[in-house]
Amino acid sequence: MEWLEASTENCPVQRTLDVVGDRWTLLILRDAVNGVHRFDDFHRHIGLSEAVLSDRLRKLTSAGILRTAPYREPGSRSRNEYRLTRKGWDLWPALMALSQWGEAYTLGPEGPVLNVHHTECGAAVRVVVECSTEHSALAHEEVTARLGPGARRRS
Amino acid sequence: MEWLEASTENCPVQRTLDVVGDRWTLLILRDAVNGVHRFDDFHRHIGLSEAVLSDRLRKLTSAGILRTAPYREPGSRSRNEYRLTRKGWDLWPALMALSQWGEAYTLGPEGPVLNVHHTECGAAVRVVVECSTEHSALAHEEVTARLGPGARRRS
Repeated sequence: MEWLEASTENCPVQRTLDVVGDRWTLLILRDAVNGVHRFDDFHRHIGLSEAVLSDRLRKLTSAGILRTAPYREPGSRSRNEYRLTRKGWDLWPALMALSQWGEAYTLGPEGPVLNVHHTECGAAVRVVVECSTEHSALAHEEVTARLGPGARRRS
Repeated sequence: MEWLEASTENCPVQRTLDVVGDRWTLLILRDAVNGVHRFDDFHRHIGLSEAVLSDRLRKLTSAGILRTAPYREPGSRSRNEYRLTRKGWDLWPALMALSQWGEAYTLGPEGPVLNVHHTECGAAVRVVVECSTEHSALAHEEVTARLGPGARRRS
């Protein structure tokens, strides 16, 4: 069986997009990675409607990507803020990869909005596809994809 | 200035999503990475309408992510197929990162659809955020983000 004959129904890219493939969702996660936790902050910073934000936060929480944690400002009622779970942080490489492409191809003359560094040594970070044994960064030509046990014939 | 005060207008994640942030677009790119090049193959394999596929292929071509190359089947007229450019291949780490998350969190009991290996040694590949100097894979806690020269105050 070849890739074209395999069903895409259980493709992991497709299943990931089913959960986080919405543009607003990815922008919420981008802000969460950068330390944004509160409804009003997401709302103002991303500039999406309260209704859409509520919906996306609810979906991300029910998917286990964000968790709620109560906080209370002096003189206000208790509210929830939104924190990335481990499952949520595991989307960080995907967000960094999207950012890396944007910096390579859409960067304005003013330079990057955000510089991301290895805290310890100060060097820039980058996203690579690497060999899990040799830890060498791989070009796509060095990689082979074969259908696995989950491949189903497309109907 | 803090992240929350910075405009997201020139955020590289947002600018990338402006180009490829549509679900169908990402599924077309997933298929292109896996060797799908022809209109009818994309159409049948992904299961999207011809109108949407035409639109997305046109946008990807005009963005320089796909390029067209003529081919001719015996007895048919010449048609175009779609090939990833370097700019398109540079989205490969993002697609692999989305796939990796899907394999970690949405994998069915039947196992993966696709096994991706380092051709030379046969080991699995993985996507990591690494230090560009030490080439060590980094956890998000080991990384610091600071606003860069392109940061603009949100209006």
